[in-house]
Amino acid sequence: MDLKEKKISGEVIYDGKILKLIKDKVLCPNGNESYREVVRHNGGAAILCITKDEEVFLVKQYRYPYDEVMYEIPAGKLEVGEKPYDAALREFEEETGNKTDKLYDLGVMYPSCGYTSEKIYLFLATDFKKTQMNLDSDETLEVLTLPLSKVKDMILNGDIKDSKAICALMRYELLKEKGNI
Amino acid sequence: MDLKEKKISGEVIYDGKILKLIKDKVLCPNGNESYREVVRHNGGAAILCITKDEEVFLVKQYRYPYDEVMYEIPAGKLEVGEKPYDAALREFEEETGNKTDKLYDLGVMYPSCGYTSEKIYLFLATDFKKTQMNLDSDETLEVLTLPLSKVKDMILNGDIKDSKAICALMRYELLKEKGNI
Repeated sequence: MDLKEKKISGEVIYDGKILKLIKDKVLCPNGNESYREVVRHNGGAAILCITKDEEVFLVKQYRYPYDEVMYEIPAGKLEVGEKPYDAALREFEEETGNKTDKLYDLGVMYPSCGYTSEKIYLFLATDFKKTQMNLDSDETLEVLTLPLSKVKDMILNGDIKDSKAICALMRYELLKEKGNI
Repeated sequence: MDLKEKKISGEVIYDGKILKLIKDKVLCPNGNESYREVVRHNGGAAILCITKDEEVFLVKQYRYPYDEVMYEIPAGKLEVGEKPYDAALREFEEETGNKTDKLYDLGVMYPSCGYTSEKIYLFLATDFKKTQMNLDSDETLEVLTLPLSKVKDMILNGDIKDSKAICALMRYELLKEKGNI
């Protein structure tokens, strides 16, 4: 079955700092016409940092869209033209004040495939050393480390709701299950 | 530390069919002013359906924002005023042609906390019977069932990139680990 939709026409609704909003008229595979409202986003990189004692780095940060303080893993937006790996190295140092030379690739995930083109590239850091935090001017956050078992409890009881944290932990657990780390 | 940002002023950029885009001027906790571009979304419900033989229902669907066919779990948007549980019951039947009386709550997850207010409510269905598929007029999808072990391989090798599928599976695995299901 052909599942693909074809663009008939499109317009840019808004072109902003972190996102662009477009509205396209499309032809659906069943012959119907419809509109797609799509957020174009440059993507992000997120890093699951786990120490040799299986302590996990979490970032506690206020998130304006939810008006809530959330537990997440370190992450940031890709600059234009920036490789996900390089963005991950940069954000890890900026947000946690730790530097690593090597990140393990945990693959990509699509946060909300109905209306955004954002891709979040996930990485694992297991070896790092202390340097200096360096936050953006509009960024305020706290870094904490918690045992992996506690972090898994927080995923289950809903204290951790952040999709990138949960997806990175899932891939980490599956890698362990396979004996690949 | 106070992490909260305060709204100074705001404007609605676009008010569409599935999302609203707003741009707010905010005061950051460090005293700086900044802008927040926020997608307001009514939220969604997603259902992890697992048979007694640990076969998982997947939905194969073309996603316009990525121009890709993706493997996901059944899901849909909340209607205005609709409870997540009721939306999950409805979407499960509409998308898979199966009916269930009881869903297990797998908690909520936030797909991309930097710029969208969307919350995705996750549920587990383990007991269901065949009825009738009933898709929206602009919806085309295929339903397939695969063994849980295969689905976990697909998460690890990146064939499954859908955040709601990965998060629901993670909470399911953690529940099993705890002996709660």
